[in-house]
Amino acid sequence: MRWGWALLGLLLALGAPAGAEKGMEFPEYDGRDRVHILNADNYQAVMKRYGVMVLYYHKHVGESRAAQRQFQMEELALELITSPAALTYQLAAQVLDDYDDEDIGFGLVDSKKDGAVAKKLGMKEIESIYIFADDEIVEYDGQLAADTLVEFLYDVIEDPVEIIDNERELKGFFNIDEDMKLVGYFKGKKSPHFIEFDDAAEEFHPFVKFFATFDSKIGKMLKLKMNQVDFYEPFMNEPVTIPGKPHTEAELVDYIEAHDRSPTLRKLEPHSMYEIWEDAIDGQHIVAFAEESDPDGFEFLEILKEVSRENTDNPDLSIIWIDPDDFPLLVPYWEKTFDIDLSSPQIGVVDVEDADSLWLDMDEDEAMPTAHQLDEWIEDVLSGHIDPDDDYDSVNDDNDNQENDDDDDDNDSGDDK
Amino acid sequence: MRWGWALLGLLLALGAPAGAEKGMEFPEYDGRDRVHILNADNYQAVMKRYGVMVLYYHKHVGESRAAQRQFQMEELALELITSPAALTYQLAAQVLDDYDDEDIGFGLVDSKKDGAVAKKLGMKEIESIYIFADDEIVEYDGQLAADTLVEFLYDVIEDPVEIIDNERELKGFFNIDEDMKLVGYFKGKKSPHFIEFDDAAEEFHPFVKFFATFDSKIGKMLKLKMNQVDFYEPFMNEPVTIPGKPHTEAELVDYIEAHDRSPTLRKLEPHSMYEIWEDAIDGQHIVAFAEESDPDGFEFLEILKEVSRENTDNPDLSIIWIDPDDFPLLVPYWEKTFDIDLSSPQIGVVDVEDADSLWLDMDEDEAMPTAHQLDEWIEDVLSGHIDPDDDYDSVNDDNDNQENDDDDDDNDSGDDK
Repeated sequence: MRWGWALLGLLLALGAPAGAEKGMEFPEYDGRDRVHILNADNYQAVMKRYGVMVLYYHKHVGESRAAQRQFQMEELALELITSPAALTYQLAAQVLDDYDDEDIGFGLVDSKKDGAVAKKLGMKEIESIYIFADDEIVEYDGQLAADTLVEFLYDVIEDPVEIIDNERELKGFFNIDEDMKLVGYFKGKKSPHFIEFDDAAEEFHPFVKFFATFDSKIGKMLKLKMNQVDFYEPFMNEPVTIPGKPHTEAELVDYIEAHDRSPTLRKLEPHSMYEIWEDAIDGQHIVAFAEESDPDGFEFLEILKEVSRENTDNPDLSIIWIDPDDFPLLVPYWEKTFDIDLSSPQIGVVDVEDADSLWLDMDEDEAMPTAHQLDEWIEDVLSGHIDPDDDYDSVNDDNDNQENDDDDDDNDSGDDK
Repeated sequence: MRWGWALLGLLLALGAPAGAEKGMEFPEYDGRDRVHILNADNYQAVMKRYGVMVLYYHKHVGESRAAQRQFQMEELALELITSPAALTYQLAAQVLDDYDDEDIGFGLVDSKKDGAVAKKLGMKEIESIYIFADDEIVEYDGQLAADTLVEFLYDVIEDPVEIIDNERELKGFFNIDEDMKLVGYFKGKKSPHFIEFDDAAEEFHPFVKFFATFDSKIGKMLKLKMNQVDFYEPFMNEPVTIPGKPHTEAELVDYIEAHDRSPTLRKLEPHSMYEIWEDAIDGQHIVAFAEESDPDGFEFLEILKEVSRENTDNPDLSIIWIDPDDFPLLVPYWEKTFDIDLSSPQIGVVDVEDADSLWLDMDEDEAMPTAHQLDEWIEDVLSGHIDPDDDYDSVNDDNDNQENDDDDDDNDSGDDK
């Protein structure tokens, strides 16, 4: 696998496309090394130098291997281009170098050589990135792409609670339906109950979104009494009121920890994709692919949300929605791995271990399944009636475990014509 | 600027984060060269081999420079990591290699050596990417990132007209408000008027979205008579009916060409960012930064949409909305270049040539400007009363050109308390 070096030289000289007028210049990595290598001797000193520290807890790399590199330039160049991780990490460090008066440092911790350092710092999972900010540790278990990591870091350094001041901001609050969120109504910033709420927010920030209002009109529109906190699962219109107001930080943390895993429907986001993918029920996921910006995909998503809302009390049901637009580089890989066509919506069961999967038969030219049909299919999956050896048609008449058969599905009219 | 090679070796060994269970494996460039170098002798033969051909029309690279590379391995390795363009282009080619039965080829055309080839193929702008599909040429003038380019190519190979079959799909149609779109009501797929519409769609695909319905109920909900075509500017709720139905392809093309540049408000998207940025009025843009997923940003965007809808008939007004979430790597650069804080919404005038800019003074802790105040500020910009030597307060009382002073702003109540 040798490169044509002349071609390579040519490619190197390609820059950003034209029209890169002032104002739109993407940063390219400048080659300056900004990443610290942390060890038992230096980690305390290095971490003191930064307000926010980002550490990549990586698997061990043998000394000899690294040392050998010096004499294998050509191989090195080749491997470099096949290994975007280094570039990504350095580019993120470069972009955030001296950002917005926040000192953001980047470092590496070797899992074998410096496991003790990792233990002291509280880093558990090898090959994860940990962010240390304001005495909190945030684990990043998302795509290793500079833009995704950098965007996540912006979220980390934001305030953990957003205040809703007026009706337009309230509309913005309702517009956020992909994340788990909480909203509370408090007397003001100095209210001890708000301070408990704010402290709880820090524990889950930025994965769970916390909102508060001090405005009685907004409180009323949210149907909140003083010191009441409501909890919204992703995509659910109706919140659940956390019982026992006013709450201490510990009470809020306990409640959220009991509810933050396995919502009925959640969206796969690049910044948390591996964490969500790991979090499978019995090693399986129900996965739905739907492109929201496409009328077909939008339609299917509406049906999926309807089914999810009807089944929100079923603890065994957890559906992951993937918008292919968010993962263009994975589309051909998913199509091959799962043997599906992602130009139209798909729903299936995927085994996380071996990527074995079974997909609901939806003909592209026919109508979408109704909410009722989708509900039946999901019941069959949960009851184990659907496995990779069967197909949908053969199990469709075999529903002896349909607890939700009597569910309201009057919203389905018009779909099965 | 020398690298520590040991560190480099270490970085090289970093892979994707853990939890990369089966099903979530991002492609890494495998080092195989898939990019053709086109010249006068081979271009016809190469292009014949692919259903879709992607060509990067790049600035000339000297022969000697490329040849020299063979003897400068270390520099080369360094430059490689500073030059993501080559990697991006190869990775896009790899991901789409053998995609979905579509043959998608990738090539390079040197602007000096093979200007004649470029001319024959109709490529005009150096440093742009041109996509040849179904006898149409589509110019890509967006971010040179593999995911953005690949997603754009998926859009290119989709059908140019989406059919709206039912109410949920109609809801999906209304949900798309960031793009310019057209919708027509026709008798069926074989209607000659639909065929003209479909042919017109090919000319603008995928930048302008085309929808059609053959369902009388949906037609009625869209207030469309048979063969009527409505045109929607981005973010406008009310369409304009294209006069003179039924339309020929040429009539539709003429109408869209007269209206597709400079909508009142449009969103900067990675796949067309350079084209939009170039398309300035008198070398200036009104630029608004607002994060839609943040209540503040959502609120500001609502005000901006309101002002845009009120001024949709003003041909001199063209606002570019940038959601910082779409461009995380540019945020620190914009903050430095424009001397603004992007953690809250901003609106300003930017000179495209030198990136000089002037920004509306919005205090983070105070209320947003009302639609009326924003309208006044925009009037001042358009009339030339605002220039980089003034600030907002000093020109605010100097409105002798406020044509829209009597505009309805009863929606502003509650914002200026």
